[in-house]
Amino acid sequence: MTMNDYVAIDFGVGEELKEVEETLQRSVRSDSPILTEIAMHVIAAGGKRIRPAICILAFKAVGGDPRNMHSAIDAAVAVELIHSATLIHDDITDEGEQRRGRVTAYRKYGVHNALVTGDFMFVQGFKYGQFLSPESIRIAAEAYERLAEGEMLQEQWRNNPSIPMEEYIKIISGKTASVFSASAQLGAFHGGGNDEQIEALGSYGTYAGIAFQIVDDILDITSDSNTLGKSVGNDIREGNMTLPLILAMNDGVDRKLLSDVVAKRNKPRELVENAIRMIRESRCVPRSIAIAEEYVELANESLSVLEPSPFKTELERLSSSIVARAR
Amino acid sequence: MTMNDYVAIDFGVGEELKEVEETLQRSVRSDSPILTEIAMHVIAAGGKRIRPAICILAFKAVGGDPRNMHSAIDAAVAVELIHSATLIHDDITDEGEQRRGRVTAYRKYGVHNALVTGDFMFVQGFKYGQFLSPESIRIAAEAYERLAEGEMLQEQWRNNPSIPMEEYIKIISGKTASVFSASAQLGAFHGGGNDEQIEALGSYGTYAGIAFQIVDDILDITSDSNTLGKSVGNDIREGNMTLPLILAMNDGVDRKLLSDVVAKRNKPRELVENAIRMIRESRCVPRSIAIAEEYVELANESLSVLEPSPFKTELERLSSSIVARAR
Repeated sequence: MTMNDYVAIDFGVGEELKEVEETLQRSVRSDSPILTEIAMHVIAAGGKRIRPAICILAFKAVGGDPRNMHSAIDAAVAVELIHSATLIHDDITDEGEQRRGRVTAYRKYGVHNALVTGDFMFVQGFKYGQFLSPESIRIAAEAYERLAEGEMLQEQWRNNPSIPMEEYIKIISGKTASVFSASAQLGAFHGGGNDEQIEALGSYGTYAGIAFQIVDDILDITSDSNTLGKSVGNDIREGNMTLPLILAMNDGVDRKLLSDVVAKRNKPRELVENAIRMIRESRCVPRSIAIAEEYVELANESLSVLEPSPFKTELERLSSSIVARAR
Repeated sequence: MTMNDYVAIDFGVGEELKEVEETLQRSVRSDSPILTEIAMHVIAAGGKRIRPAICILAFKAVGGDPRNMHSAIDAAVAVELIHSATLIHDDITDEGEQRRGRVTAYRKYGVHNALVTGDFMFVQGFKYGQFLSPESIRIAAEAYERLAEGEMLQEQWRNNPSIPMEEYIKIISGKTASVFSASAQLGAFHGGGNDEQIEALGSYGTYAGIAFQIVDDILDITSDSNTLGKSVGNDIREGNMTLPLILAMNDGVDRKLLSDVVAKRNKPRELVENAIRMIRESRCVPRSIAIAEEYVELANESLSVLEPSPFKTELERLSSSIVARAR
């Protein structure tokens, strides 16, 4: 399964995702043609829309009234816009060359234009949230606060081989899982879910998001750039501490060599490729997959407070499909 | 008068500005000490808080009920947070070394951390706007949409000596005046002003903002870095087309030399200093001041729909003080 197959899986909410897509494209229209062009460069590249899918499914899983679906769609659009904004900004600081199979915005349009477009998409995100309640703006804003905190923590541990596992989980809980959790909470909130349901869906999102990031970490090691839509080994080159790398350093693989690669600011290509091969061939990849599977299980257990429904089943299928990517 | 004197002028709303200040500092607290430190680096440097002052004065000038002042303060905090976020991002792309008399955030903390802190402040801005109405979120979001459009237009005309005056005004209307206008509109809106009053205060903000940017342009030529809190001649070095420069190229000053400086991507220091001296000694500076004064007049004329009040008088005093900086 490749990244793009995700778009084909609509988890039974294809109609709603189509509306999310159209609203997304409308949301970045502006009087500045170049602003719209850059935003569309990012949005039209697709991406998995997994956060919007979670939002819509959560809405339905708590029995949301279809007449209020528009608010779940607006929330999904807001989350995806802000997510896309952070991707543009991430690529600037990570010097990423490819994203979703396309050259990154800052490489094509320059740092200035990419940065401003990211800001524009941030603002559009909150504009789409304007008709939502204070509570839902709070949920979204706090998720992005956690995201920023996760990014900062990641930066503190960059190129540092002695990172403890708890810090790794804290980083990915912030930079990835917080937004998954917010998507699920927003869907449940607008679907009229009670506090217990909203909290349960929040946990579902957190665990699914952690699994998602672990799989992303694995793919950085095991995939090829065609399937991945971006270059392989980026995390290692950038000094991002990923799960397979952390496991490898603590078990079985030549710790000295890996630590050397990690600690170097400028990593020679050959060293990086060597490290990737070593990790790829070690048992750290299947172990990482097993850990991701545990988080998927936690995610699905969180749903136990919900009544059985096709949408609950789809949420389970969605989280399981996250790990299927890594196999 | 130096930039910092602005803080001392409270335009009769010192109490409210103090509350804005305290709320601002509270707003950037986070679980990530470095995130808070960087945000405070920018916020605690002060700045003129001219946008919050306009917001509060507009609230009072339409006869806002003191019991609703908290919403004007929240709106002012939101605008100032988002404004500060764009400053951090601007410095990254302009490679600014100083801001408000301090080393810029990205120079002190690195591009990654500065960029993420900017995003964090964006989000906090909208979080502070959460209790405001959809209408006020729309006003703020649209202003920042105009801001992004202005930034993009400026980028298109960078290093291009043939920029027409209309395009210059369009750029500064977007990148600066839109937020001044939003501040005034937000104050009037939360003060319960009618449509005519909100529109009038929006125009006041637009014109005052244009005057403000023209004065900023002038100071980049005539000031010294101690007074300015950032290095002089930055705009020319960066290829930003400013009013004194545009006037100088169309009148009296050695057009060929200036065009050469403008069109060069890497501008030799000597050439830049030469250009600054030429513009400084030309009549383009007093002419720029005269144009800024015209915009101040337009700003104050916009207030004619308001009943006379001490706050209306303070708004007039505020816009006039903008040009006083350039003299």
